[in-house]
Formats: sequence, structure tokens, C-alpha cells
Amino acid sequence: MINAKALATRALDEDVAHGDLTTSATIPLGVHGQGAVLAKEALVVAGQPLAAAIFAEVCARYGGEVRYTERIADGGAVAEQTVIADVEGDLHCIIVGERVALKLLMKCCGIATNTRRYVDAATETGPAVVDTRKTTPGLRAVEKYAVRCGGGKNHRFALYDGVMIKDNHVAAVGSLTEAVRRARAVAHHLVRVEVEVRTLEELDEALNTPADVVLLDNMDDETLAEAVYRARERRPSVLLEASGNMTPGRIAAIRDLGLDFVSAGGLIHQAVWADLSLKVKPTPRLGL
Amino acid sequence: MINAKALATRALDEDVAHGDLTTSATIPLGVHGQGAVLAKEALVVAGQPLAAAIFAEVCARYGGEVRYTERIADGGAVAEQTVIADVEGDLHCIIVGERVALKLLMKCCGIATNTRRYVDAATETGPAVVDTRKTTPGLRAVEKYAVRCGGGKNHRFALYDGVMIKDNHVAAVGSLTEAVRRARAVAHHLVRVEVEVRTLEELDEALNTPADVVLLDNMDDETLAEAVYRARERRPSVLLEASGNMTPGRIAAIRDLGLDFVSAGGLIHQAVWADLSLKVKPTPRLGL
Amino acid sequence: MINAKALATRALDEDVAHGDLTTSATIPLGVHGQGAVLAKEALVVAGQPLAAAIFAEVCARYGGEVRYTERIADGGAVAEQTVIADVEGDLHCIIVGERVALKLLMKCCGIATNTRRYVDAATETGPAVVDTRKTTPGLRAVEKYAVRCGGGKNHRFALYDGVMIKDNHVAAVGSLTEAVRRARAVAHHLVRVEVEVRTLEELDEALNTPADVVLLDNMDDETLAEAVYRARERRPSVLLEASGNMTPGRIAAIRDLGLDFVSAGGLIHQAVWADLSLKVKPTPRLGL
Amino acid sequence: MINAKALATRALDEDVAHGDLTTSATIPLGVHGQGAVLAKEALVVAGQPLAAAIFAEVCARYGGEVRYTERIADGGAVAEQTVIADVEGDLHCIIVGERVALKLLMKCCGIATNTRRYVDAATETGPAVVDTRKTTPGLRAVEKYAVRCGGGKNHRFALYDGVMIKDNHVAAVGSLTEAVRRARAVAHHLVRVEVEVRTLEELDEALNTPADVVLLDNMDDETLAEAVYRARERRPSVLLEASGNMTPGRIAAIRDLGLDFVSAGGLIHQAVWADLSLKVKPTPRLGL
Amino acid sequence: MINAKALATRALDEDVAHGDLTTSATIPLGVHGQGAVLAKEALVVAGQPLAAAIFAEVCARYGGEVRYTERIADGGAVAEQTVIADVEGDLHCIIVGERVALKLLMKCCGIATNTRRYVDAATETGPAVVDTRKTTPGLRAVEKYAVRCGGGKNHRFALYDGVMIKDNHVAAVGSLTEAVRRARAVAHHLVRVEVEVRTLEELDEALNTPADVVLLDNMDDETLAEAVYRARERRPSVLLEASGNMTPGRIAAIRDLGLDFVSAGGLIHQAVWADLSLKVKPTPRLGL
Amino acid sequence: MINAKALATRALDEDVAHGDLTTSATIPLGVHGQGAVLAKEALVVAGQPLAAAIFAEVCARYGGEVRYTERIADGGAVAEQTVIADVEGDLHCIIVGERVALKLLMKCCGIATNTRRYVDAATETGPAVVDTRKTTPGLRAVEKYAVRCGGGKNHRFALYDGVMIKDNHVAAVGSLTEAVRRARAVAHHLVRVEVEVRTLEELDEALNTPADVVLLDNMDDETLAEAVYRARERRPSVLLEASGNMTPGRIAAIRDLGLDFVSAGGLIHQAVWADLSLKVKPTPRLGL
Repeated sequence: MINAKALATRALDEDVAHGDLTTSATIPLGVHGQGAVLAKEALVVAGQPLAAAIFAEVCARYGGEVRYTERIADGGAVAEQTVIADVEGDLHCIIVGERVALKLLMKCCGIATNTRRYVDAATETGPAVVDTRKTTPGLRAVEKYAVRCGGGKNHRFALYDGVMIKDNHVAAVGSLTEAVRRARAVAHHLVRVEVEVRTLEELDEALNTPADVVLLDNMDDETLAEAVYRARERRPSVLLEASGNMTPGRIAAIRDLGLDFVSAGGLIHQAVWADLSLKVKPTPRLGL
Repeated sequence: MINAKALATRALDEDVAHGDLTTSATIPLGVHGQGAVLAKEALVVAGQPLAAAIFAEVCARYGGEVRYTERIADGGAVAEQTVIADVEGDLHCIIVGERVALKLLMKCCGIATNTRRYVDAATETGPAVVDTRKTTPGLRAVEKYAVRCGGGKNHRFALYDGVMIKDNHVAAVGSLTEAVRRARAVAHHLVRVEVEVRTLEELDEALNTPADVVLLDNMDDETLAEAVYRARERRPSVLLEASGNMTPGRIAAIRDLGLDFVSAGGLIHQAVWADLSLKVKPTPRLGL
Repeated sequence: MINAKALATRALDEDVAHGDLTTSATIPLGVHGQGAVLAKEALVVAGQPLAAAIFAEVCARYGGEVRYTERIADGGAVAEQTVIADVEGDLHCIIVGERVALKLLMKCCGIATNTRRYVDAATETGPAVVDTRKTTPGLRAVEKYAVRCGGGKNHRFALYDGVMIKDNHVAAVGSLTEAVRRARAVAHHLVRVEVEVRTLEELDEALNTPADVVLLDNMDDETLAEAVYRARERRPSVLLEASGNMTPGRIAAIRDLGLDFVSAGGLIHQAVWADLSLKVKPTPRLGL
Repeated sequence: MINAKALATRALDEDVAHGDLTTSATIPLGVHGQGAVLAKEALVVAGQPLAAAIFAEVCARYGGEVRYTERIADGGAVAEQTVIADVEGDLHCIIVGERVALKLLMKCCGIATNTRRYVDAATETGPAVVDTRKTTPGLRAVEKYAVRCGGGKNHRFALYDGVMIKDNHVAAVGSLTEAVRRARAVAHHLVRVEVEVRTLEELDEALNTPADVVLLDNMDDETLAEAVYRARERRPSVLLEASGNMTPGRIAAIRDLGLDFVSAGGLIHQAVWADLSLKVKPTPRLGL
Repeated sequence: MINAKALATRALDEDVAHGDLTTSATIPLGVHGQGAVLAKEALVVAGQPLAAAIFAEVCARYGGEVRYTERIADGGAVAEQTVIADVEGDLHCIIVGERVALKLLMKCCGIATNTRRYVDAATETGPAVVDTRKTTPGLRAVEKYAVRCGGGKNHRFALYDGVMIKDNHVAAVGSLTEAVRRARAVAHHLVRVEVEVRTLEELDEALNTPADVVLLDNMDDETLAEAVYRARERRPSVLLEASGNMTPGRIAAIRDLGLDFVSAGGLIHQAVWADLSLKVKPTPRLGL
Repeated sequence: MINAKALATRALDEDVAHGDLTTSATIPLGVHGQGAVLAKEALVVAGQPLAAAIFAEVCARYGGEVRYTERIADGGAVAEQTVIADVEGDLHCIIVGERVALKLLMKCCGIATNTRRYVDAATETGPAVVDTRKTTPGLRAVEKYAVRCGGGKNHRFALYDGVMIKDNHVAAVGSLTEAVRRARAVAHHLVRVEVEVRTLEELDEALNTPADVVLLDNMDDETLAEAVYRARERRPSVLLEASGNMTPGRIAAIRDLGLDFVSAGGLIHQAVWADLSLKVKPTPRLGL
């Protein structure tokens, strides 16, 4: 569901543009090579369709042919020193695209691996772990895909496919109740309305509105427990989401409170790139 | 030197598209508001022209007017709880753009702050700290700008404005010497040729070529010291760059070896978002 | 919430491209003119921000200045022969943009006027009248805006901001119940799940699922009445939408059944352009 | 001559963007299906290359393969309940593209069917029926193609490929004669100059200019007859076009007056979507 | 009628992209400068709106302000060492845009100056001198504008706004007469049909068709004279155009034969860049 | 290294847009044809991948298939009346693309042929002949490719991949020495710094800076000889480039002075289009 070709075009326009000076000078088109994508640390695999699209776009520009063959599908967890894919074909094209392809893999695997830690902390019986809109501009679809590879779920994609009433909206409208009323009146009937609360008093107010989801933001464990209790008492069907610097440790601590969702921007923005390499070498061409 | 308007267009197409459901429903155009960008931790400021461009683009689309006024210029280091900028104008537009603007600030400040730690480790007399091509696809100009805000320097921008011969090129050509020869013969005379070496033997070979810069990759401290010594003996004018999991600690350890540059992808890809907030509230409009 | 500038760019590239041969030859830039947008039939006004954007874009290309001043705001109903707006400024620019601006007004007013008839048939106490995805490719945001001007409400915008399980999906999955289950498991928690049913048997099945909304498709009046009754008995909170060649007459007939929504593609695709004109004449420039 | 790929891209970006929530959740890639495009009313077929392009673009994005096979070529007239095409291939891709493909068919068939009524009214010996610039912004090439499928002819495509002097131009220049003179002096020698007249007096003036074509606008039958007579007397080679709320009935009434062309915006803007359906079902994959 | 902003965007993306290394390093924003565009040889001025658009776009990107003030309007002929315009404003922006602006001026003045020689050879009473489709890809509107500045006229803009039947078409169809018939039947009634002939026999055939214009291609003077004579005898209203390596000398030789048009690709493709310079210097800022 | 597909798209949008009126009317898709690209004068071949891309893009739009087969590779020198390539396939597509493809060949061959004259004048032992930034906006990559086909070398591509300090920069900064210092401090370490000098005094100053390359601009032969002598004495490793109205004759005169490079904008901007033709005819389809 990611427009991988558009991403590849943009990424290669940025990195290659009118030419890879080094590779053009040193490696002619027509030399055959092969290599392997190696996980240099334990990680959850993600982003391989993007890597494949990078090589496809390089080939579309320069005329070679490159085959990206997955050994481990996206979503799989691998140990250090595992080869996750083979890359074979025109050596020139492999080397031109190598860094961009690898970066996308490193970014995606980093997010997926990071997400997996949060998901493991929640366990199967705890709340679903979801992402937020704190994504890198221009790469949201990529990063949200990586979250799914890591076992997380996505929250709304953007401002246009879900209503989320935050403190800024409440402050502007003057009351949480009125903000929910306005939103429900205007939003189409296939989106739900979520409202953020920070105190039990705000929660009480929210439970009197037709909000479908309540976001319990930045509450300590005790308040959170009380909030879940109150909500379940008064509006059994309301969905409850908790947020606020959620780490795997915090998630483990609150996983049995009865929350439906825990959202964490950190799935994406606290992830660092996973360590992978792509080493290639010229080979006698065997068939192809 | 960043096309901030193009970035703003792309980012808002992604996050707002055909409408911010929540803000459209709750806050009409025409309400005046003001707020402040607050550093919630100590950080180096970066990315403010991008934030300003976001609000400008939102206003161009919906008709309001928003003023982003810097209190601290990009590049400045601030303490926790410092207000770095004021935002004032149409409340609807501020809230629609808030998250995107803030994300760019968080990313840029994160990189600048991270970079500053590396630069401080190098001290004024040590090697210059430079970035690499390990940047986020589509955001290279942004991330390299943030590195400069943090006091770092940029390496080549992309594959097209510098020659860098790596192990993959050498393997394909068959010899480092020949790879340098080919590159120098083809590349235009305003780019330099850099060659990566991993051993002293490779260094010896590189020093016999017309390469302008040698990248000493993944050497231990001792080998690095020997490499600098040999190079200075035989080719005093050659530029020397070291790389390979460079952290502030490692940089501090090798800063007096006589290297010209230390390059670290981690300036960018190991940076996590800095913590900033933008709180706004409706205000009686005063003048504007 | 429509990117009017992008629409204007596309529309003028199509109609003007490298030049309006006639106007270029006959009317130099710099002549001042004024005119009026006249409703030649009774209609509901819509689309004026688009018309204004057309003239703005023409001026951005050729250097003049044109002022589009609404007399009647979008959403207002006017009698035949009402002037709804004044257009004043560079005559060359007005005439180059006239047809494109007028077409957008004719299209939008046509949809708004048509929608109003459906909405009036539903009355205030009847179901809300909503549109569908049966819009003109490339103009969905425009057409949905016109529906709102006519007093209608929008359904989901596209395939990405709401779940709607149709017969094709059920046929592919093998069971309505399973289709709902899959959709609810995957879709993010701020979208609702709607399921289309055509018979009372299907309705019975749907009511046993966690679907939030049921679309009663192509049922006759009697069946519709029974469907509403059953649903309200068993799932009071379920939202009920009816569809299938809904005309104002049909809506009037079923408005008291207790439905929440009636959806009609005909709001948009059965609308014909409203009749408006824009006559301009050169004038002595008065101030500006 | 329509850039069908560009249209498909735009239409799918609008309707699918980052994902069809329902189909993604319910129908995996790899299931084979087949279906038929059914005309639910008598109509003239048009738009099939566009429908095929939609499925091709969906497949290019998600990896499946869909075959659109015409049974009736564009331009053919069919009875109610005729299958005009078969669609077979990846079920996921068929269902994602179904609505957009169908909408284009409904729009094009609607225009072609509507046009055919005008053309039939003109008969073979009457004037040619041509369209106008009153097309939907962004879809002119599509709509003009549908007119041709219906047996109509196209007028100029846009402001840049023909000179048409209207009342607004004459009013600005001060005289019809001078407007024609200026246009002829500037326009290149492969475009003709057409001038719009509303009265016999204006016609007399037009016949004294080098205008190649005269548009007789909004004249009653009697005046129209007199106009044709005068023009043929004085300028046998001049081309004569009539316009002004031309309906099939009106065209039938004036078809023997000797006009060369009758132009009617209503071919396109008074057309309503034709009624077609596309039902698909999963099938055991047979070869492919 | 040139989209100068789009051209400026493209040209600066090509030449500046992520930064002018030299100017960024040496001249800060905020220094005021002024300079003059100097014609270093006698020439016809053309292209100034494009030069102005370049500076405007640079300023839009970097924040400065530059004023381009014409001393000589496009179309004027100037002697060697004439200052044709003043440029004043932010020195950084002037220098970044200088080369691109100057190149456009050099190209346009070169074409205009070259065109003027052809036009002068034709004299006022001879045939009109027109260009062809032999333009630089991507710059047709620019080059055709420069032709008009030089006193030439434009032929059709492209393949879509005029019918021109050439030898390749005739060869494919099998007969010139049939090719004309087909073209006239299909092309809309505001474009004329031109047919290329190379011999008197072909001319005879062409005169029996409804072609509006005959292109006499590559005939010697004598044949050309005979061709004009025959055509005027048999079809006084037909338009006659001659082509085939037309130089000013050749045009002078045939100017009294009675041709309507002489077309020459050489107006554009044989033109070389005119010699202009733009020298700037920092100045004390006076007002602005 | 040219994005030929993007160029083809742009060129065909400009020339064909919504249709080639003539070819659409006269030659149906499905007729097979063949032709040959003929050099009508002695020339150096260049641009064939672009011509092939044009035909490929036409086919992608209209459905045919065309094969462009080189007989002479780019860079080869051919005599008058040599066939350099065969074109075979769908006749409609060949004729639609013919002019655009031919124009690119004519432009590229013109530049390559012109460049070869300069390169021959320099001989193998003289300075390398390089181009400049005086290229046609939007076509720089094409023109620089043609220079390489002609045996020339490229200078920096644009403002972003090399530092070149010119008189305007020196004037703004106040001193050549300071301008070099600033540039070296800011530019990344893989670009060199070049400085332009016009007198021996300026040369003396330049030799005291860390500039890597000195451009000796507009010096007479004697001064040039002295400049080379001084530079070699004082900075043996400095690279020396001469420029200023360099013609083949001038290059021959100075080729033994010891210069490294001679740069000439005239390689590109003084080149005129080479004379080539593409004649096609319908053929019985033989296989394909």
C-alpha cells in the first residue's frame, strides 16, 4: 500500500541525480555481480519491497537488471549475522542503488525491531500497541508499514481520517463537551471521535459526551487504573487509549489495567537505524 | 538553501490533504491565537525556517496569517524550559500546522543537539566532524542543514558531487590503484577523489595514487595513529578522514592524532527527536 | 479545505496553456473592466472560492489584478436574475479566466441546488442526506464541498478513511460475518465499519457482528421499515443508512422510518450545470 | 490520444491513496476473480481504454494482473442488460479499481449516449454536431473523446488552438470588425477565426471581415434561416455554426437550414451518468 | 504567455539545486548591489521577462529582493555597448541568478537578432517570415516569443493546433488527395489544413483538394515562381508558404514572387547566443 | 546518466499534448513502417538514447512498438550520407515522434561535431577541452553528454558541485584572498576551489591562496605563457585552466603552453544543429 515507485524516484533523484561519479567511472554496465543483505545484529525484518523498488528504478534508468530475493519475509525476527536477502544482477546498478536501498532497510528494520519490544511488553493479552502521527515528513506510509512489520498497529493515518480532540482544540472552543459536539456534528459517520483527557475530571466530562474513544494522556499508574475503572463502569463500550512517554517498561507495568490501546510516538521517532550491510562482488554470470 | 516551500507542500499534503477533520469542525478561521515553542530539554536550536514555512503554506491554503518569530536563532544552545519562538496569528492555521512544524523542529533540534556532542568531543583543535550520506530519503538537505546548526560540517551531498571509492568499487575493478585512476580520468576537475582503506597495506597503495583524500575506515586507535604517521610522511598534503562507528567518546580518544576529518553517520541516524512543545491559546487580537 | 490553487493551475493549463489566442490578440493587458456573475435561474450558490482562485492564478501568470467580490455567500439560495458576485480588474485577465471560473460555478451551483432538493425532502427531522464516492475523478473535494453548500453531509471521502463492506467483499471472503471480523481486526480504531445488506437475512447476520453502521441497500419501503424495526430492537446504537436510487420523492416517502442516513450518488452525478453568466465590459478605471 | 496513465494515477491517488481499508483487510492478493461490465440500460459504449488503464495502474501498484477484454468496442450502441466487457484477474486489484473504472465508464457512456441523440436528430444530411469548451476541468480530453464515441465532432480543444471572438471581446475592442482584424493579424496561419454574432446586423458586419466561421448565437428559427440565406449569398465559403441551448428537438427543427455546424455544450454538461455495473466473484484460477 | 515562473523553477533547480557553493560561502544575504545588463554587440532585445522571473524566483527561495528595470523594451534594436537594463537589490541573489538570467537573455536576443535579419530581407511588402517546430525541447514557448520580438511571426505551435501533411503522411496514406480528405474530415473546423508539395505535379494535385495552405518545399526560384503563378490562377484564396533552407539571402531573392509566408527553422536553430554581460558590484544601499 | 524518460515526457507533452492532428487523421495505428536516420553532412554521432526514448514514450502512450537500432554508436564520426540508425515499427508512432527525436539528434550531433573540432585543435598532448555552465536551461545533462560524445570533458555540472570564484564574488568580498579563504572554509572537502584571474597580479595573489585551480581568463597569448610559467614555478601542483572566447584556432595557438584545461562555452552555445533526416515508409510487416 506504499507507492514504492514514487519513493524510489524521489530517493534516487536526491542521491544520484545526474550521475554517480564514482561508479560511472569505475564499473561499466554489463558486469554481473551478486551480494547479500546481512543483518549485523538481531532485528525484525522490514522494508524489503522498498529496497527492491530502488534497484528496479535504478535499472529502469540505466538499463541493467537486478533481482532482489528475500530469504526472510518482512516481519520475521532474525539473529545477528543472518542473510535476509540475496541481490544479484548488474553490478553497476547494484552499487548505485546500494546505499539508498540499505538506508531504507536500516530505517524500517530499526522501527520494526523497536516496535517489537513494545509489543512484547504488552503481551498478547494486554493493550494493542499503536503508533502516532509523529512520523518523518514524507515517509509516513513507510514508517507505519514498518510498525506493522514489528507487530504494532496503526493509529489514524493523518488529520483527515479520524477525529482527535486535543487540549489545543478544547482551549480554543472553551469546553471539551462543546468540542466533541461540534466534531461529531461535522465529521462523516465512518470516523470515530476521540478526545484527549489529562485528569479524572476531564474524563468525567468526556464520558458524558458521545466520544467513541478516550485518550488518557500522561496519567500516572494509579490515576490510569482509576480512569479505566470509572470508564468501564459508566460507558462499557468506550474505547480507552493511554499515551505519554510510553516505553516497553511502562507498558509492562500497565498492561493488565484493561486498556484497549497504548500509543507511542517512540515506536518510530525513538527508533535508531538497524545495522545491516550489503556486500557485493563481481561474479561470472551464470545464466540469468 | 533548502527549498522549504516544496517541503512544506509535501508534508502538508501528507498530513492534511483534503482536511483536518478535528480543527475544521471545532475552530473557525478568524479566531486569533498565540503560543510559544518551548524547549522541554536542553538542546541546540535548528529548523526554524522550516517551521515558519509550514505555517506560511497552511495560511496560503486557508487564508489566515501566522507570524513565527524566533527568539533564539538556529544554532543557539538553550537550557531546558526555554521559549525559542513565538507563534501568533490565526488559531485555526496554527493548530492545523502545529504537529508538522513541531516534528520538523524536533527532528532538526535532535540532530543539531546530537551533532554538538560530537563536535565538542573533537574540540577546536581536533578534526572537523562531518556527516555522511546516511540520511533519511527525501530529507537530506534538511538533515545536513541541522548538522551545520550543530556545528558540524557536511561531507559531499550525494553521489554526484564527489568521488568516493569504496570496497565495492575496488572489488569490481580489481585494484584500488586502477579504480582511482579511472575515477580521476573521468571526474571533472573540481571534484576531489577520496578512497577508502581498511588496512595499512591498502593505505600504502592509496598513497601511491593521486587520490586527494584517504578515508581510514574502521581502524583501531593504534592502526589509526600509524596510518596518520605514514601518510603525513609520504604525502603531507593528503587529506585524512576517519570513520567507523564514531561516537563522541571515540572522537575524544583520537582527536589529537592529526586527522583532518572524522565522519559519522550517527550525527543524523543515531539522533532522536528533541523534546519541544507548542501550546497555543485564543487571545484577543492585539493589533496585527 | 480544497487546494484551490492546484485546481486552478490544472484547469488553466488545460484551457489556456501557451496562450488564449483570441484575447491576446484583441485585448491588451492594462485595460480595466468590470462585470457581474448572474444567476440566470433560481439556485443555491457554491464554488466561489474556486472562481476567485481562477482569476488569481490568471493574474499570477500575466501580471494583472482582479477582484472577485461575493454578494451572496456560498450556501445561499437566490432567485433567478440575482447577481451573486462582482468581478472587477484587468479586463484581459477576466476574459481569459471567465469560462473556467464560470464552469466551476455552474458545476458547483448545480450540485448544491440539486442537493438542496434532496435535503428539503428529508426535512429537519428526517435522515441526514449524504453523498457517495460516485464523484468525478479529480474533482471529489470540489463536488463534496458543493454538497455541503447544498445542505447535505459527506460520507467517507475515499477508500482510505472508512470501511464499507460490499457484496463484492462478502462474495470474496465467503461470509459477511467473517468480512466484518477481518476488517475490524485490521482497520485503525478511529474508523468505523459499515456493512451493506440487501435482505433481512443479511441484516440479521450483520446485527450479530460488531459493525457500527449498516447500509440497507435497495430495499422497498416495507422491507426498509421492517429492517429499521429489527435493528432498533436488537442493536439500538447501530447506525442505519439507506441507499439505492434515492430521489427526493423516495426520500420524502421514507423520511419518518427512523433512518439515520440516506445516501445518494445522484446528489452529484445526476446534477446538471446551473445556468450562470459573467458579462464584463471595459470601464474607466476608478481608483483600484 | 488521452494520457490514460496520467488520468489513472490521479484518480487512484484520489480514491485509494495510502490504502483501500476494506479490501486490504478482507481480500488478500493472489485470489483470482472474474466479472463482467453490464449495461443496465441501453447506451452507447465509451471510455473502455480508461477503465483498462485503471486496472493496469492498480496492478502496477500492488503486483497483480488484470485483463480487461472488450466485447463491444467504444462507439457501439447496446441494449439494456448487455455485457460490454469481461474483467478477469487478481480479485483484490479488480475490487480496488472497480468504482473508479466504473465511474469513468458511466461518465463516458453517459456523454456518448447523450451525444448520439443530438447526432441522430441532425441526421446524416444535417449539420455536424460539435461540442464546446464547457467541459469538466481536468477531464476535457476524456469528455471530448466520449463525444466522438457518440458520433459527435469536436470543436477547438481550448483557447490556444482556435480563435473565437465573443461579445466580451467585441465589447472590449469596441468593434467586431476591428476585433477580427486584430485576431487575424496575430493568430498563426493554421488557425481560423470565428466570430460570434447575435443579430442580422452583426452578421452583416461579420461577413465584411475575413472571418472564416460565423457563430450564429441564440437566434430564433426565422432569424437563423435568414442568416444562413444572407451568408450564403454574400460569402458562399464562410462556415456557419449555430449555438444556444441546442437540444435534439431544436436540432431536428433546424437541420435543413443549411448550417455547417451546431454546437451544444449540453452534449457534455447535460449528460447524466449511464447505468452500468461490475459484479465480480472469486473463481478457481484457470491457467491465466 | 510564457509560464515564466515554471521556467525559472526548472532552470534554478538545474543550476542551483541544494546550493550555490561559491556564493553561499562568500556573499551573505543582506548586502546590496547593483549592476547593468550590457549588450556587447548590436542586437535585438528579447527575453527580459524571463530574466526578471529568474531573479524573482531566487529571491522567493532565499529571501532577498531584486529589481530588474528595463531600459530598452523587448523588440528594440540596440547598438554595441548599450545598457539594456539595470539590476539592483540583494547582491547574493543577483549573483546566484546571474548566469541563468544571462543565458536566457543571450539565447532570446540571439534568436531575435537572427530573426530580424530574415525579416529585413523580406521587407514590408514581401512574405511574412515564420518559424517552425524545429525548436529546443522544453523551450518552444520561449523561442517562439523571441521570434516575435525579432519581428517574425509564429507558425502553428505544435502538432495539436494545425494540420500539416508532409511526405511521410502522403507516403503512408498512398495519396496526397486522400490524406487531405482524411485530415479535413477529422480535424476540427477552427484549424486549417496545410499540405507540403515538392513538385509542380504535387502542387496541381494539392490545388484540387480543399487544403487551405500549400507549403512549397525545397523548390528552386524558377519552380517557385511557376508554382505561385499556377496557384494564384486556379485557387486565388489559397495561402502559399515556401520553405527549405531559407536564408536572408534567399528570402531577398524571392520576396517579390507573391508568397504569403516563408518559413525558416533557422530563425531559431541557426541562431547563436548574443553577447551580453551582467556586472554587479556591492553598493551602499540607497533607500530601497 | 540522463533521465531520458523524463525528457521524453516533457518533449512530447510540449509537441503532441492532446494529439497529433495530422497523423491521427491520416495513419491508423497498426500500420508497419521502417525508416533510416541519415546524416546529411559529415558529423559526430550523439543523442541516440534520447531518440530511442522518444519513440518508447510515444509507444507507451498509444500502444504501438518501435525499434531504434543504432548502426553507428554515439561518439562515432561519419561521412555525409551515412545511415546512422534504423527505425522500424508502428508507422503512426514513428511519425508522431519523428520531429522530436530528430531535433534531439540534430542538437546533440551538432554539439558533438562542434566539440570535436576544438578537441582536434588541442591534440592529444595539449590541454583537455572542457565545457562551461553556458548550457540551455533544462537541457544541461543532454548537452554535456553531447560534449563527451565529441571527445570533450565536462567542467562542474552546476553551482552545487564545485567552487568557482569569479570577479563578481571578489568584488563583493573585497579581496580574492579572502574569497578563497571563505570558500575553502565552507565548501565540503570533496570539492576543489577554483579562482578566476585576469592579470598577472591577480595570479600572484591567487598562487598565495589554497585555491586548487586557477582560471586564466581572457589573457593574450603572451600573458598566458607568462602566467603558466609563474604558476608552475611557484605552485607546481596547481591546475591551470584558460578561457575567454576559445575557438579551435586559438586553442591550436596555445596548446603547447602547458595548460591543463581550456574551457569554452562555445562547444555548446556556438554549435548549430547538424543536418539529419528520418524518412519512413509503410512496409509489409516482416515478422517483428
